[in-house]
Amino acid sequence: MAKDKVVLAYSGGLDTSVILRWLVNKGYEVICFVGDLGQNDDLEAIKKKAMSAGASKVYIKDLKSEFVTDFIFPAMQCNALYEGRYLLGTSLARPLLAKAQMEIAKKEGAKYVSHGATGKGNDQVRFELAYYALDPKIKVIAPWKDKDFLAQFKGRSDLIAYARKYGIPVKATTAKPYSEDENLMHISHEAGILEDPGFKPPEHVFSRTASIEKAPSKETVLELIFKDGIPVKLVDKTSKVMKTRPLDIFLYLNKVGSINGIGRVDMVENRYVGIKSRGVYETPGATILWAAHRDLEGIAMDKEVMHIRDSLMPKFAEIVYNGFWFSPEMDFLMNAFKKSQEAIDGKVTVSLLKGNVMITGRESFTPLYNQKLSSMDEEGGFNATDSRGFINVNAIRLKAHNIAMKGRIPFDALKKKSGKNANK
Amino acid sequence: MAKDKVVLAYSGGLDTSVILRWLVNKGYEVICFVGDLGQNDDLEAIKKKAMSAGASKVYIKDLKSEFVTDFIFPAMQCNALYEGRYLLGTSLARPLLAKAQMEIAKKEGAKYVSHGATGKGNDQVRFELAYYALDPKIKVIAPWKDKDFLAQFKGRSDLIAYARKYGIPVKATTAKPYSEDENLMHISHEAGILEDPGFKPPEHVFSRTASIEKAPSKETVLELIFKDGIPVKLVDKTSKVMKTRPLDIFLYLNKVGSINGIGRVDMVENRYVGIKSRGVYETPGATILWAAHRDLEGIAMDKEVMHIRDSLMPKFAEIVYNGFWFSPEMDFLMNAFKKSQEAIDGKVTVSLLKGNVMITGRESFTPLYNQKLSSMDEEGGFNATDSRGFINVNAIRLKAHNIAMKGRIPFDALKKKSGKNANK
Amino acid sequence: MAKDKVVLAYSGGLDTSVILRWLVNKGYEVICFVGDLGQNDDLEAIKKKAMSAGASKVYIKDLKSEFVTDFIFPAMQCNALYEGRYLLGTSLARPLLAKAQMEIAKKEGAKYVSHGATGKGNDQVRFELAYYALDPKIKVIAPWKDKDFLAQFKGRSDLIAYARKYGIPVKATTAKPYSEDENLMHISHEAGILEDPGFKPPEHVFSRTASIEKAPSKETVLELIFKDGIPVKLVDKTSKVMKTRPLDIFLYLNKVGSINGIGRVDMVENRYVGIKSRGVYETPGATILWAAHRDLEGIAMDKEVMHIRDSLMPKFAEIVYNGFWFSPEMDFLMNAFKKSQEAIDGKVTVSLLKGNVMITGRESFTPLYNQKLSSMDEEGGFNATDSRGFINVNAIRLKAHNIAMKGRIPFDALKKKSGKNANK
Amino acid sequence: MAKDKVVLAYSGGLDTSVILRWLVNKGYEVICFVGDLGQNDDLEAIKKKAMSAGASKVYIKDLKSEFVTDFIFPAMQCNALYEGRYLLGTSLARPLLAKAQMEIAKKEGAKYVSHGATGKGNDQVRFELAYYALDPKIKVIAPWKDKDFLAQFKGRSDLIAYARKYGIPVKATTAKPYSEDENLMHISHEAGILEDPGFKPPEHVFSRTASIEKAPSKETVLELIFKDGIPVKLVDKTSKVMKTRPLDIFLYLNKVGSINGIGRVDMVENRYVGIKSRGVYETPGATILWAAHRDLEGIAMDKEVMHIRDSLMPKFAEIVYNGFWFSPEMDFLMNAFKKSQEAIDGKVTVSLLKGNVMITGRESFTPLYNQKLSSMDEEGGFNATDSRGFINVNAIRLKAHNIAMKGRIPFDALKKKSGKNANK
Repeated sequence: MAKDKVVLAYSGGLDTSVILRWLVNKGYEVICFVGDLGQNDDLEAIKKKAMSAGASKVYIKDLKSEFVTDFIFPAMQCNALYEGRYLLGTSLARPLLAKAQMEIAKKEGAKYVSHGATGKGNDQVRFELAYYALDPKIKVIAPWKDKDFLAQFKGRSDLIAYARKYGIPVKATTAKPYSEDENLMHISHEAGILEDPGFKPPEHVFSRTASIEKAPSKETVLELIFKDGIPVKLVDKTSKVMKTRPLDIFLYLNKVGSINGIGRVDMVENRYVGIKSRGVYETPGATILWAAHRDLEGIAMDKEVMHIRDSLMPKFAEIVYNGFWFSPEMDFLMNAFKKSQEAIDGKVTVSLLKGNVMITGRESFTPLYNQKLSSMDEEGGFNATDSRGFINVNAIRLKAHNIAMKGRIPFDALKKKSGKNANK
Repeated sequence: MAKDKVVLAYSGGLDTSVILRWLVNKGYEVICFVGDLGQNDDLEAIKKKAMSAGASKVYIKDLKSEFVTDFIFPAMQCNALYEGRYLLGTSLARPLLAKAQMEIAKKEGAKYVSHGATGKGNDQVRFELAYYALDPKIKVIAPWKDKDFLAQFKGRSDLIAYARKYGIPVKATTAKPYSEDENLMHISHEAGILEDPGFKPPEHVFSRTASIEKAPSKETVLELIFKDGIPVKLVDKTSKVMKTRPLDIFLYLNKVGSINGIGRVDMVENRYVGIKSRGVYETPGATILWAAHRDLEGIAMDKEVMHIRDSLMPKFAEIVYNGFWFSPEMDFLMNAFKKSQEAIDGKVTVSLLKGNVMITGRESFTPLYNQKLSSMDEEGGFNATDSRGFINVNAIRLKAHNIAMKGRIPFDALKKKSGKNANK
Repeated sequence: MAKDKVVLAYSGGLDTSVILRWLVNKGYEVICFVGDLGQNDDLEAIKKKAMSAGASKVYIKDLKSEFVTDFIFPAMQCNALYEGRYLLGTSLARPLLAKAQMEIAKKEGAKYVSHGATGKGNDQVRFELAYYALDPKIKVIAPWKDKDFLAQFKGRSDLIAYARKYGIPVKATTAKPYSEDENLMHISHEAGILEDPGFKPPEHVFSRTASIEKAPSKETVLELIFKDGIPVKLVDKTSKVMKTRPLDIFLYLNKVGSINGIGRVDMVENRYVGIKSRGVYETPGATILWAAHRDLEGIAMDKEVMHIRDSLMPKFAEIVYNGFWFSPEMDFLMNAFKKSQEAIDGKVTVSLLKGNVMITGRESFTPLYNQKLSSMDEEGGFNATDSRGFINVNAIRLKAHNIAMKGRIPFDALKKKSGKNANK
Repeated sequence: MAKDKVVLAYSGGLDTSVILRWLVNKGYEVICFVGDLGQNDDLEAIKKKAMSAGASKVYIKDLKSEFVTDFIFPAMQCNALYEGRYLLGTSLARPLLAKAQMEIAKKEGAKYVSHGATGKGNDQVRFELAYYALDPKIKVIAPWKDKDFLAQFKGRSDLIAYARKYGIPVKATTAKPYSEDENLMHISHEAGILEDPGFKPPEHVFSRTASIEKAPSKETVLELIFKDGIPVKLVDKTSKVMKTRPLDIFLYLNKVGSINGIGRVDMVENRYVGIKSRGVYETPGATILWAAHRDLEGIAMDKEVMHIRDSLMPKFAEIVYNGFWFSPEMDFLMNAFKKSQEAIDGKVTVSLLKGNVMITGRESFTPLYNQKLSSMDEEGGFNATDSRGFINVNAIRLKAHNIAMKGRIPFDALKKKSGKNANK
């Protein structure tokens, strides 16, 4: 009888290597899937490791362009920011990985998918909700929520012992005393020594951004051109470099952001599973892009649309963070948010210096911002005396409220009053 | 017959000096009110100028402490931020000025109040809505919306001529080619040469913050202690300075913020009256405070409360910006927001460097953040297998949606179906 | 020199007839526009009256089908309900009238449009905002906000005298002691004797619905078939009548609603201009449709989508009520709301009896409602033990909150604590 | 060794009687708790049954008054309505039962609580979240999510067999082919034959309300007096009965509601656990109260407060429905909602007839509704010409949007433009 196939999201690390072998030992045929999101790994080495650990096949998929165009840029269009600070670098990667993994499962006719995310974090939720949303019949093997697996592997030493037993190479170097997740959007650092929220992350934790101290003292000036809220061109005014392909634009932003020490965030956030968690993030390029896009909206977006959208953005970010990228509520919000971007066309000038993203000017390609209208000196279609009526009408309600509150009947008098009424 | 009294919000500038005289010439007794919000003016000189221009009396009121405790700190508690960036430095000052002005009107038995805000801006709305909310019977004289006044004063030269005619001193120095509003929270620069949204403000525009270039290369480290979301102590770890009085805390934040180049914002915003306007702001102290408070919430605030509050914050900021500080909707939101701050008690460590406000650690005085719980390594009351049920239950809806969408009946088949039903 | 053309929204009533003549006397060429929204007027008589009062031309446009398909049905799709009760019968008609009027203005090359709405109501806002949104250059003549007109016409008797002077027929019958607005969606009654909010409207006020007492004692049973939230077929199970054209469906709903005493509402509502106003409405057909559509959503709409949509519906209704039908914020919301309707396909059985709209059953044409899943007796893909994890994970936050609140440090202890910290 | 104590929420039905015995057989000391919420049971008989089934003690607590004052009335103040129709009769009862049960657990020193709610419904969540929120250390035994229990009891026949084995009386009458939950607020009917959403509930299902057909043909007229949104007096104008105690008011509303056929709802709703479920409800008194309170708000509540509150109400109802009554997010919203009720003082006249709750008049004890102001005929502090400015200012944004959209640059031209810019 043919073995059941399982497609495993494989990273090449200790955990997923052990899981791979454990699944093989359980009698599954294990097909590994490695998504290339720009995490700077040696993908060929990972492939070899997977095969040596018992995989029947390894798929390596380059998802970098899709990540930028279908996940990062839409999130930037929507100003997505979780709890005021987190740009969702990991949250956005998960549904893309899950989607690519499910495509392989479909192609291979596999009934099972598996992942190595822990049982207390967000990623397990993001992976599994995406799996189920894409195919309600898929079966998920999540070892870190499996009683047997948990009983067998109580700590890192158990994993190492198991790996050694099955000839899986274990890096000689000691692991970092915290965990990381990396892709072309960001790198996150959490857990371990960073769990103490009062502990300042030592400088060596940061791998993608220069410190403020080491960042150059000369600014980098960029021009970003947007069409419908999506960057379509980047010009480095300093170096004269120009980029127009989405991935190129984003990688260039990363590069200049890194150099200039941009995009570090240290915060305590709320996981979907109800736990608070401290995260340290480096997100250089997206930090610049987010700021530039938001600025352009200032000049190009209607006020009421912006204010309604702003009240919905936290929900949008929550949906992404919690792992509901493929969901009807996401479709619902996205349809509105995309509509709001129809005229977000223009150019933003950004200066990068010592960790700062400074917007120094912007131009809208639609004439929503009317300099004449906003001028206080000239009359540009706006009759100042109209403001009188505007204020007076807005004041009616406030006047009535003032009178009402002053005229409130004390409870005892009220009882009498209603008593009287009752006897009418 | 006694003249009608009018209480004028007086700044000492050309506009309100001309308005003062114009009101006197109209036959009013003009009582000037100068609110001291820390705008660094020579208040005695302003008083003299008012008397010489025809005022019957001048009230100078020190509102600095009240501004901090009753307006700035509550706004910080609520994370108020208009259109993602503006900390509302002018918006918060207006209702306080209006309130103090109305108290004088009441004391003096004046039926009229007046102000010098233009007819196309936000301040006219903020002043007048506050006046009306506090006393529905008050009569407002707003010269910049008065047809006669507008006909008489078409430009700055008319104002100067009028001032000279009545012996009102006009500053020899040419006015700045843009307008400013200053108080202890911020200074704003707008209009004039800044109206072109693509024009980069020259460095000389900035008066309250050092440029990134000139800011020191050594960080300033602060500890901020909060009780119920309000700062109750500040310790400068570098200089060992400690502050506990609200005004002192805020002024010290301003000082170190200024030195370190913190709090510049350049944006296009939406005025209440429907016009877009470019504003350049410097808000050093509040920028630090806002960031520290938001960070503390990360560790000390319940997730659901935070997410609902975040969705309401844009409305809160809009209410403040539009001038509805004294309104039932403000009371409504404030009651909830204050409740959310009940356990926002803790300490935040902030590093200031080259324009950056970096949070490097925080401690909550309530144990909402549970390091054990959030640890991925240890079991701290959280059973990883519970996540399985959590995810499965959350997936039910997504699975059903997937099935429903796949099972959608095309319109023609639907017609048949409903036709069949109709004939049942 | 050719006269300036003005297109007047003409009703045939006293007010707009006087306005017509007044405009002619002012030197305008007046083109009348009568929109047929099913208001049961004698349109030919209105045309004659307009011509005799001085109109150069009269356009009568049948807007009934467009009203149903482009305004009423979309509003029903969105569950639009203002302040919990008002189905927006007048609000929805105004933008359509304004649009048709503006099309005539464009065709005729008229620079002016005019309407007879009062200066304290909502309709003036709805008309004028629609005019301006459709053509920013249009000039609006609103006599009831015109100082000269207001000075000339202080009451009904002035209008009558003016009409008589110019040979405009004035109905012999005394006007009703309240005002009405009628179209195929509803009839509203307000003002006059109805202004006292405690005064019970006498039965003769109601013209479109039978009283509960007079409604038949036998129920009418309907089946309504929806596609994407839009009714596509109606079957009267009692009479065997079937309707499939939108206007036919709606008019039939009106008919059976009227007979069965459905759709009366008596409420005090908030006008956009800040005034409270008592309105009495009769909206038979839309009341049935609203209830049936809402019910179908119960079975066919995703939970999260519904809950987000429900939180936005009041804003949607406010936008319609306030006259912002043609606005970017409407486009924003509508895009999301329409998306939510993609699978609202199904059949609802409705019983009408003595004022009640009772839903007695429904069927979804998509399988989102899964009887097996919801059954408590059978296992249908739902593992009851999953609920344990679901609840436990949801409880984590609540437990932490309980502990945090119990562990709150009193202010004095806090001071000591922070003092201690400060001295570290 | 002393047995572990468990406090069981006991109903006297088959399920909880079996659970009781099962717990005893497991070695627990079982203390039964029966909450009297007006469910019309023979409480003494239930007590006896519990003792005979093995309980060591039975607590019967009269919670009726507390249910009305602390749960029903606050929910009515907040206009709570789940998914547009469900008045939350069961949802509101659960946290009160859990609270009373936990008080007994504390008094008895019991470490365990238990309930008989199924593993696929909402009630398990409501009970358990309340338990955990009130005491994070409590241990919950939920047999219907317990693998052993589920294995032992696969259907009703297993329960009956077990009951017979242990001498627990089983009602001879066959159970209803659907399940019910009853308290003084409502009775719900669901599951079983009602699971088919297209199946019309037969008349015998309804036990608390007369059918429309059998309801009297003569109206009942009530006056309801509210203070801060809470009913403080009820006068039956027909029978001259007057009630002022909360429980009396509510029970009287139930009585007249029942007679007049008021409060039936048949809907498909979304359970918290992601399943859709059909519910049939009878909620006579609360239906009247909800309508009267909402009406009074129309005249007594500020517009902006109402509109913000209305957008939050669905969230409020969701919180209640999902079982988060004791939660920080509930405290957050409740604080705002209560504030909004400060001047909801007045009298509402309600006519009940044939299933209809008709409001025929209302009076506010605060003067927020100003008849003069709203009059169209008189000038009451409202200057109609102010509306001109109001509209013009509101139109600015729409005009700008129109111009912007017309002026949108096609993508190709945009590329050229940005290309040009890039070469500057």
